[in-house]
Amino acid sequence: MNSLRINPGRLRADFDALAEIGATGDGGVHRPALGEAHLAARAWLRERIAAAGLELRVDAAGNHSAFLACGPAGAPTLLLGSHLDSVPHGGRFDGALGVLAALEVLRVVQEAHVSLPVHLEAVDFTDEEGTLVGELGSAALAGTLTAEVLRSPRGGRAALEAGLARAGLTEAGLLAARREPAALAGYLELHIEQGPRLVQAQATIGVVTTIVGLCSYRLTFAGQAGHAGTTPMADRRDAALGASAFTLAARQVVLEDFPGCVANVGEMRFAPGAFNIVPAQVAVALEFRAPEVETLDRLEAALLDRARAAAGQFGLGLEVVPLGKTDPTPMSEAAQRAVAEAAGALGLTHVALASGAVHDAQALAAVCPAGMVFVPSVGGASHTPREFTPWADCVNGANVLLQAALRRGGKEETRKRGDEETRR
Amino acid sequence: MNSLRINPGRLRADFDALAEIGATGDGGVHRPALGEAHLAARAWLRERIAAAGLELRVDAAGNHSAFLACGPAGAPTLLLGSHLDSVPHGGRFDGALGVLAALEVLRVVQEAHVSLPVHLEAVDFTDEEGTLVGELGSAALAGTLTAEVLRSPRGGRAALEAGLARAGLTEAGLLAARREPAALAGYLELHIEQGPRLVQAQATIGVVTTIVGLCSYRLTFAGQAGHAGTTPMADRRDAALGASAFTLAARQVVLEDFPGCVANVGEMRFAPGAFNIVPAQVAVALEFRAPEVETLDRLEAALLDRARAAAGQFGLGLEVVPLGKTDPTPMSEAAQRAVAEAAGALGLTHVALASGAVHDAQALAAVCPAGMVFVPSVGGASHTPREFTPWADCVNGANVLLQAALRRGGKEETRKRGDEETRR
Repeated sequence: MNSLRINPGRLRADFDALAEIGATGDGGVHRPALGEAHLAARAWLRERIAAAGLELRVDAAGNHSAFLACGPAGAPTLLLGSHLDSVPHGGRFDGALGVLAALEVLRVVQEAHVSLPVHLEAVDFTDEEGTLVGELGSAALAGTLTAEVLRSPRGGRAALEAGLARAGLTEAGLLAARREPAALAGYLELHIEQGPRLVQAQATIGVVTTIVGLCSYRLTFAGQAGHAGTTPMADRRDAALGASAFTLAARQVVLEDFPGCVANVGEMRFAPGAFNIVPAQVAVALEFRAPEVETLDRLEAALLDRARAAAGQFGLGLEVVPLGKTDPTPMSEAAQRAVAEAAGALGLTHVALASGAVHDAQALAAVCPAGMVFVPSVGGASHTPREFTPWADCVNGANVLLQAALRRGGKEETRKRGDEETRR
Repeated sequence: MNSLRINPGRLRADFDALAEIGATGDGGVHRPALGEAHLAARAWLRERIAAAGLELRVDAAGNHSAFLACGPAGAPTLLLGSHLDSVPHGGRFDGALGVLAALEVLRVVQEAHVSLPVHLEAVDFTDEEGTLVGELGSAALAGTLTAEVLRSPRGGRAALEAGLARAGLTEAGLLAARREPAALAGYLELHIEQGPRLVQAQATIGVVTTIVGLCSYRLTFAGQAGHAGTTPMADRRDAALGASAFTLAARQVVLEDFPGCVANVGEMRFAPGAFNIVPAQVAVALEFRAPEVETLDRLEAALLDRARAAAGQFGLGLEVVPLGKTDPTPMSEAAQRAVAEAAGALGLTHVALASGAVHDAQALAAVCPAGMVFVPSVGGASHTPREFTPWADCVNGANVLLQAALRRGGKEETRKRGDEETRR
């Protein structure tokens, strides 16, 4: 089985055909979840699954699968996959590469008549990117989706309702799409890195150790509005000063004390917001990420400290509104080992690294051993038509997915799964 | 003439009656220029002028005047005045006090049958606050209003057109409202300080030395959008960092090197402006003021230097868009002397200070010797219903206006005017 390789020409033909669906003419694609282009991509995928002689499965969350019964009756299924939806005006690699590589792995295994202790399934998850909800299909499959999330979806109720109607889906269906964890042998996902570290490390393959935890806050610095001409500088309680000092301090503390972490002030909203009025309030949109729970907690405390210090320095009030926190999600150690061994067997340089972005693997990790394979993103470009991964790297990534799947599907690995779940 | 005093009860009755027109119920008034409440205030003023037996004059810019022919035939006119319009939800003192005190001065002079070398005129100027244009009536009277300004008014064309229609005014009329400078003996205006300096100095009267110059810019810091999870901190070109560093540096440079000046970052606009995207662009609304031309120029250079340094520090581009510059306007030395002498004669503490806010006196200074009297603003509150000046201070200010007018109307002062205009 170590000699099995994917068919690069067949994968390329699929990749190019898919990139035409929702193409924006600048190398990118516009396939927001459950929009017309996304549904067209799924119709195309159904044809490709049928053409491959694989079994098509569509669940109540709209997740599309190719299923290959390569294991004994009653065996669990190893899932491979990613997503066909894109951010608005996104790139043609993000998600698409992972779905097509998974489909190609099933074709290769089917053609080679390989028998495994598990079945294989290539999945296209619904709405990973969050135009509607984010990780919608994978969370539904994992059984972690809640009615509460659907009541106030990230993209708004109207967009969710319209998308579900277009796709013939229902909220009740989404909430009922959970699969029995015992039926899942694990999950593997090939994805572009969306960052510059593999290129910087001159490595071909990234072995994902964890998906970073993410935390966001709305921090509102509150001073007092004043006439910008008649209020002496020393008397001002200028909310812009607190917000500015915090923005610089947040960067500084991450650079100095939190290597491997990131923080972002993505927006400030000024009130009243006029040239000639000292700002009374500045609301700061803060997001930060860390690869370990303990680090995320320490970073959170350090950033809130800096915010309070910045407010205090300029005589301002501070309103702290937490907007959500997701703990870091470690990838299965067995999956990491399988990916690293597969890369090694293929003679590919590989490095371990954390994923700074969210992926369907995060949802799957709640119910089965999950792992990810990263391939390089030129310039680290992500969520833009400039997103690019050299084709040779895509082929290497697909072969690593294939070989890692064969290892993860092996008897030894399947046995280990129970222990691992207990440990997490 | 040194024994003449205004009638506090009569002035108070006027003040309280006017404060009811457009009252917002919280001590403030809402009388945007040429809106219904402003026009109602003007109708009320016409009645008060008629009741006082003074001559009502309304010019083509809508400026309302009470005229008192207390000088010889062909004598120039000393203007006293301010404005009855307010900012949206403003205070009841700003502008109103100056108009009513001017009217009261004319009543007192009329009752005392004083003859002066000049005539007196109490003016309510149209749209000082800039809901429509700003200093509209005073600039029209001074002949400095241009068709270009009317084409792109600060409040938008629709608001200007609607306001003029409501008041029965025309743009042609505005542009033709200029008065012959030779007919103007000077201008004096009583106004609340709108800042805290008189209270801090424990002084009753402010002798305005100059109206500060004002300059504004749109500074756009330009970096590169990036995924806030996957772009390493050290690789970011984050526009928020440049904008923040500049905001802090602007304050620092003013505090350290430009005493008596002010700078304000009133707004920042982020693009694309999301929690999870490194900001590509931040547009900063910058305004700064200085009391002398040379200082304003140095401050402008220092702030632009700081902006370039902040952009350079974080690898950002910088787009610099100047949005207008008004030179500082010195008040007439004779007018300052008259105000200081009047305060001294009345036994009132007085200090010289620059006005950080714009006033009609700025427009008038272009064509005649202009001066201003300030009274204290409690807490420095301005353009808010919280705006407040103790009534005793209002009475003192009105008496200083009266005595300064008698001095400015005196033969000696009138003779000096020609020299002064040559000097400026």
